[in-house]
Amino acid sequence: MSFNTFGKIFRFTTWGESHGPAIGCVVDGCPPNISLSEKDIQVFMDRRKPGKSKFTSQRKESDKVQILSGVFEGKTTGTPISMIIYNRDAKSRDYETIKNKFRPGHADFTYLMKYGIRDYRGGGRQSARETASRVAAGAIAKIALEKIIGRKFKVVGAVIQLGLLSCNKNVWNEKEIRKNPFFCPDKKSIKLWEKYLLSIRKAGSSCGAIIELRASGVPAGLGAPIYSKLDSDLAGALMSINAVKGVNIGTGMSSAFLSGEENSDEIRKAKGKINFNSNNAGGILGGISSGQEIVASFAVKPTSSILNKRKTIDKKGNNTTISVKGRHDPCVGIRAVPVGEAMMSCVLLDHFLLNKAQCK
Amino acid sequence: MSFNTFGKIFRFTTWGESHGPAIGCVVDGCPPNISLSEKDIQVFMDRRKPGKSKFTSQRKESDKVQILSGVFEGKTTGTPISMIIYNRDAKSRDYETIKNKFRPGHADFTYLMKYGIRDYRGGGRQSARETASRVAAGAIAKIALEKIIGRKFKVVGAVIQLGLLSCNKNVWNEKEIRKNPFFCPDKKSIKLWEKYLLSIRKAGSSCGAIIELRASGVPAGLGAPIYSKLDSDLAGALMSINAVKGVNIGTGMSSAFLSGEENSDEIRKAKGKINFNSNNAGGILGGISSGQEIVASFAVKPTSSILNKRKTIDKKGNNTTISVKGRHDPCVGIRAVPVGEAMMSCVLLDHFLLNKAQCK
Amino acid sequence: MSFNTFGKIFRFTTWGESHGPAIGCVVDGCPPNISLSEKDIQVFMDRRKPGKSKFTSQRKESDKVQILSGVFEGKTTGTPISMIIYNRDAKSRDYETIKNKFRPGHADFTYLMKYGIRDYRGGGRQSARETASRVAAGAIAKIALEKIIGRKFKVVGAVIQLGLLSCNKNVWNEKEIRKNPFFCPDKKSIKLWEKYLLSIRKAGSSCGAIIELRASGVPAGLGAPIYSKLDSDLAGALMSINAVKGVNIGTGMSSAFLSGEENSDEIRKAKGKINFNSNNAGGILGGISSGQEIVASFAVKPTSSILNKRKTIDKKGNNTTISVKGRHDPCVGIRAVPVGEAMMSCVLLDHFLLNKAQCK
Amino acid sequence: MSFNTFGKIFRFTTWGESHGPAIGCVVDGCPPNISLSEKDIQVFMDRRKPGKSKFTSQRKESDKVQILSGVFEGKTTGTPISMIIYNRDAKSRDYETIKNKFRPGHADFTYLMKYGIRDYRGGGRQSARETASRVAAGAIAKIALEKIIGRKFKVVGAVIQLGLLSCNKNVWNEKEIRKNPFFCPDKKSIKLWEKYLLSIRKAGSSCGAIIELRASGVPAGLGAPIYSKLDSDLAGALMSINAVKGVNIGTGMSSAFLSGEENSDEIRKAKGKINFNSNNAGGILGGISSGQEIVASFAVKPTSSILNKRKTIDKKGNNTTISVKGRHDPCVGIRAVPVGEAMMSCVLLDHFLLNKAQCK
Repeated sequence: MSFNTFGKIFRFTTWGESHGPAIGCVVDGCPPNISLSEKDIQVFMDRRKPGKSKFTSQRKESDKVQILSGVFEGKTTGTPISMIIYNRDAKSRDYETIKNKFRPGHADFTYLMKYGIRDYRGGGRQSARETASRVAAGAIAKIALEKIIGRKFKVVGAVIQLGLLSCNKNVWNEKEIRKNPFFCPDKKSIKLWEKYLLSIRKAGSSCGAIIELRASGVPAGLGAPIYSKLDSDLAGALMSINAVKGVNIGTGMSSAFLSGEENSDEIRKAKGKINFNSNNAGGILGGISSGQEIVASFAVKPTSSILNKRKTIDKKGNNTTISVKGRHDPCVGIRAVPVGEAMMSCVLLDHFLLNKAQCK
Repeated sequence: MSFNTFGKIFRFTTWGESHGPAIGCVVDGCPPNISLSEKDIQVFMDRRKPGKSKFTSQRKESDKVQILSGVFEGKTTGTPISMIIYNRDAKSRDYETIKNKFRPGHADFTYLMKYGIRDYRGGGRQSARETASRVAAGAIAKIALEKIIGRKFKVVGAVIQLGLLSCNKNVWNEKEIRKNPFFCPDKKSIKLWEKYLLSIRKAGSSCGAIIELRASGVPAGLGAPIYSKLDSDLAGALMSINAVKGVNIGTGMSSAFLSGEENSDEIRKAKGKINFNSNNAGGILGGISSGQEIVASFAVKPTSSILNKRKTIDKKGNNTTISVKGRHDPCVGIRAVPVGEAMMSCVLLDHFLLNKAQCK
Repeated sequence: MSFNTFGKIFRFTTWGESHGPAIGCVVDGCPPNISLSEKDIQVFMDRRKPGKSKFTSQRKESDKVQILSGVFEGKTTGTPISMIIYNRDAKSRDYETIKNKFRPGHADFTYLMKYGIRDYRGGGRQSARETASRVAAGAIAKIALEKIIGRKFKVVGAVIQLGLLSCNKNVWNEKEIRKNPFFCPDKKSIKLWEKYLLSIRKAGSSCGAIIELRASGVPAGLGAPIYSKLDSDLAGALMSINAVKGVNIGTGMSSAFLSGEENSDEIRKAKGKINFNSNNAGGILGGISSGQEIVASFAVKPTSSILNKRKTIDKKGNNTTISVKGRHDPCVGIRAVPVGEAMMSCVLLDHFLLNKAQCK
Repeated sequence: MSFNTFGKIFRFTTWGESHGPAIGCVVDGCPPNISLSEKDIQVFMDRRKPGKSKFTSQRKESDKVQILSGVFEGKTTGTPISMIIYNRDAKSRDYETIKNKFRPGHADFTYLMKYGIRDYRGGGRQSARETASRVAAGAIAKIALEKIIGRKFKVVGAVIQLGLLSCNKNVWNEKEIRKNPFFCPDKKSIKLWEKYLLSIRKAGSSCGAIIELRASGVPAGLGAPIYSKLDSDLAGALMSINAVKGVNIGTGMSSAFLSGEENSDEIRKAKGKINFNSNNAGGILGGISSGQEIVASFAVKPTSSILNKRKTIDKKGNNTTISVKGRHDPCVGIRAVPVGEAMMSCVLLDHFLLNKAQCK
């Protein structure tokens, strides 16, 4: 069972509500003897934290991670790593006025249907604030993989579509991705994206996004048939991120439009190395990694908390309208980039460890 | 762990290779006192079985299911239901000529990389023949849900895109879907699809497909945050089907292109009933069902086993070419329809049972 | 996988080292709408905490539990309940002198063999301090069961054997158990036990104990064949407590000495109620509860950290001796009583929830 | 969840009823490239099968195992190994007369309380016939461990107590164990045991037994804190065997009577090898193997199906008596020996694989 736990061998359990005293996560199954400090993890946290630019939520959270266990004299010990992140800037007042209304597109209604009770402050557990914990876990996964596989291992995500605006993803400039506030891989698009997003925010609206993730340096042979396929696990992992509605592996949905010849990636050997002539498969064949780059993408729907008035009902069932004030991202897809990277890192480490158990 | 097992409370484990003596599955956690016979399950098997039309594989399998346990005097007892399906028409000779070559787009290469050994006959465990077992498990899930929820519960899948050809999915005529060899919801498209697919087969090629699944009668409140979200589990389930490369929930990838107003489904109460003005969410909010129709779609890549010659390498690493003879579906997406329905049924029953445990 | 997680539906994950900043636990799968406060849990914590009498460790820990999530306006919400307990009185100096030696009977050697690294301070993760987290989780389980089943539900544990000294367990006076420092059910034994244990402590030695647990008010039908048997899960749960070496259900090991007639509990119906003439089964038949009292017992080995000198080796493999100073329980079995109760409560709630899922 | 599945990485799922057409099991997670044939497994099956002597059930079952998947050209492939054993000599008539009565000491009553339905024929799923499947799975585990660790790896079980009769277990003659019908380690006891058991059978009664298991060649470092301890998993595994009521690790329950000095096993290094001066711990410290022999024992209660008349009720709640005819073992503990060995082998392989994943 895994309501709030993710993973098989490398597992993490997250807890906490948006406006509770803290959020956090317990990472279990991390290999021992990996160098790890709070500072190492903070680098990842800082990429996701809100309030960094005018293009994300203005909630001010330093998102400082504190390690409470599992690390001794700077190294992991193989025991659970507990991490805590205090909530510093929760403004629950903003939610007083809407606490009895269901925000369309949000889980307000469904949580109440399921549990008969909900912490409405900041969306409680349903808030994307939970993803900070995922980033902390993902940081550990990435650090462990870099230690095990080496520096050639890399997971990089980028926003390749911001609402109606595309970009040239073939550029894929990693330095650029790390620099601009959109995690956009193509410098040329940034100015336009800025204007576009500000106009959306000004209009009291929001927009969606598509994020692409690429992992290189992943050895062939990771994954497992039939129900622990690498792509199946990735799809479940990415779809579990707040507001995600679609997941592609490699060419994804578009592979339906290709012919058998176009789609299947031909194999060649040259200079002692096996190469594929293309990568429609996104580096995964039959649920197992091929040694190619692992490529996945996912769509994040537009933020549901918007100023513009929407029809809804209240808890008593009366028809009413709602306009959500507060400090919301005009495009939650942007901050989903480090979260996607984190989830992919966790899935890859998990399968790496699994593979050691089963096959080596 | 779940290499070959799917589900949490309602669980099934499949086993068997394409050209072994048999395949089968063990269903665990089925509620007791459900009327169940081999005949009930066979109805579902017959919809997936090959050799029914000229548009699918010509392998002749009756796919007769035999129940070996878990049913007593016509009713489930709560103990594991073991089912076996004998392989009757395996022609391993077809695979002799290609046993040392890796078929591009297939898992031949990755299985060997992972396990260092593989049963090449008919693709062994990697063959989509495994999905027959899923359909058997899904049949039980569907029958159980019909017993528990009632006849209003329904899961229906259809091919809404065949290669480059779309159809009018708004027609969604269930009788039609059950009748034509493509599970196409729109009668008007069938003639064209027939021609198209025959031409593709004749050309020694293959095509992909997009399948849509709709479940109605699903109560609100199923699912669970954060890592057992209903949509996350559905995505993992559908992505685990052979050749699937993309999964959408509701509007899916396209939700990236909508504004916040367009995307979030407004809520109204009328005549004592809660309604949504649209269903971009595909019936799932925050990972929990809303009571709306559950809608998911997935893309199946074109069959990788094609007659047309492709470049590849052999086990020794020599560059060579391959042309796959044998009896293959020109579009594996078609027979993925009952498989998708099965997986969705299993996920829904699983969450239904989980919800009883947690919340009712 | 479950290195540091216990349970199936009602699950808890513990973390923390004996001398780290804090220990804690995350409870997942607790039913919503249960009244819960820190004070409710503290009652259970206080029964286990050290330093209460001269018969246990003199480490002074208030063991104050803080709830960080999962409770809203005094009620559980169905989301994870994170609890933290700060370590206040760790004296790591005591361990400096023995950090390179393996204490016989302890996990010093095996942890190093497994992980290649260990936090030696206070035994790190292997310390029984971890059981404080279990008590916190068990408190929630017990409170939930009392809410669901009612006040007739009860789990009570007692020490029935202290080293070589037995007591009359047929007395089983609950008030007495809650009052004396040994959790002894028979008032008459206490004086003798006091003398005995003080003499052992004085002699620089330690002794073992046998604890019996009784749960009443448990409905018939909990448990599940074949590998989630109620007794199998109880045995695993109790054996996971530090220093436990044996577990009995009902008559336990002694049932080997009975005849078939003596052992099997006859069944009678009288005044509309089903009764058993005896309870050798400990309330469990075929892994499923019968409605009788659930009875289990377990043996705790004598504390391995003793003053008396023992032969051992150091990390470099040199033969040496060790004498363990510091603040250790002369009989760890005593404080294992609330831990045993906690584990039994968790197993029972878990199976109660499971049963709702499967059968009701 | 794991109603009918055992294990974490090396997992097996059993199915089948005593009087159904067949029983069987699906082994998942077996390492690839292990030589395996039906004949290899049959050796283990033959040791458990009934009808071999006058001291066990007279039901005649050849217990022939058939492998249906997962083995290719004589080697495991890493995919699920499905095995089937047909029931050949079920006599359901014997159960007609008692189908509406609850056998005291049996799960007749509790299965009905749980599921509201039960297959009464031969005890259905609750029958110890299920353990044949465990032996098949355990055979594979043992064969895999012998391949991986080498021939020094060994798991041997023996009956060390037959009802009221003990034996000299220090003899522990393996050849003798494999030869006599009681799996008794001491040749001198056999004559007496024969007389004793025949007299019990003649008297229409039954007796219990204690079985000891010893595994040698197990490397140090297997197991995992806190809830996947090697001893915790062993306890759960052995307690899940039909009719088991108590489990000891090493000195077990008796460790309560030892002093700290007596109990903790001193460590010495001599000639470059680490040795322990005793083995009260049963080879497990803090849940992790120490490299010593793993020793566990368990008690099997006397067979509940006896000729002698016992008081009980029927399904309608009427008081009545029961006398169970049919072909029952006078001591089910005897045939529990290969079952115990099987469970121990499975737990050890599982932890061996886990350890590879986590730590090497």
